[in-house]
Amino acid sequence: MKKGKTFIISGPSGVGKSTVLRALFEGRDDLYFSVSATTRAAREGEVDGRDYHFIAADRFRAMIEEEAFLEYAEYVGNFYGTPKKYVDEAMEAGRDVILDIEIQGATQVCAKRPETVRIFIAPPSWEELERRLTARGTDTPEKVQKRLLRAKVEMETAYDYDYFVINDTVENAVKELRAIMCAEHCKPAERMNRILKK
Amino acid sequence: MKKGKTFIISGPSGVGKSTVLRALFEGRDDLYFSVSATTRAAREGEVDGRDYHFIAADRFRAMIEEEAFLEYAEYVGNFYGTPKKYVDEAMEAGRDVILDIEIQGATQVCAKRPETVRIFIAPPSWEELERRLTARGTDTPEKVQKRLLRAKVEMETAYDYDYFVINDTVENAVKELRAIMCAEHCKPAERMNRILKK
Repeated sequence: MKKGKTFIISGPSGVGKSTVLRALFEGRDDLYFSVSATTRAAREGEVDGRDYHFIAADRFRAMIEEEAFLEYAEYVGNFYGTPKKYVDEAMEAGRDVILDIEIQGATQVCAKRPETVRIFIAPPSWEELERRLTARGTDTPEKVQKRLLRAKVEMETAYDYDYFVINDTVENAVKELRAIMCAEHCKPAERMNRILKK
Repeated sequence: MKKGKTFIISGPSGVGKSTVLRALFEGRDDLYFSVSATTRAAREGEVDGRDYHFIAADRFRAMIEEEAFLEYAEYVGNFYGTPKKYVDEAMEAGRDVILDIEIQGATQVCAKRPETVRIFIAPPSWEELERRLTARGTDTPEKVQKRLLRAKVEMETAYDYDYFVINDTVENAVKELRAIMCAEHCKPAERMNRILKK
């Protein structure tokens, strides 16, 4: 049976990644969205196993020791990480796995598993990203400029990503994501095995 | 404007490459099928510029000297080659170019232009390829076995191709080809230029 592959999807704040991912997953049971583990407390409405795997700090530390994470980081006093277990189970079941993580996490994952495919969601232009950040209405103009600068730095840092998907429209971005996932399953290593063995 | 890319499509005799290519080109004016030049005489019904560019042997030799070919070969006393000119014009116009050539030609093209993408059309299994070759009814059983052996050698030789598309059904093969072409346009070099310049 076909084994699944892991795809990391990163992108700057305001690029519309969540919307694109929601559209990507629509009606696609063959995809698995990796749920992170965290030591922070669940917030009102958050469901364990859906929003996060909520676990105690000593358990998280033990899992770090056991190398049970593909990547992890500490952020404002809490730990966040990607448990290997669910990713591996999904891939064994033939499902492609999506990791919604940042560039630093992506670097950790690829150090362990270089075959992981990294995709960066980019805005069609800086002007458009600025427009989207401003339209959200949640940030001051200064904060928007800070986010823009951070987005530029992120994108330059992501120069060694495998693909850049431009989110000009959600439809186009999803089409490109699906194309990339399909193309990656046509790589020789996977295909040669499948055909030559028959 | 987006520049086109060149895709080489190779595959063993009987795999159904012509049918797949015909389906790939249906309604797609943005694709350009590279027409080979040859020194052999035109056959009944063949049209110059559509089936081949028919040119004289001394002109072909002069073009070799001018490095006007991406690849060329001699076969049963005649020359066959891919003129650079039309390929470059199409790419400049933003069209993706398909070269329907064999592995040796592909090696020549990639030596000159390593960015060329090589796709090998493979059968779903050897049994199926044997069935298809037999069903054509044009070859003796011995000839079919010879073609099968040749197909296996070709496929092992194509181990460094970028992609293997399995022609189980024409629809699937075309879907994979389109996905590969779309994904290749999401590679960082092309995309970074497009976004960072804006």
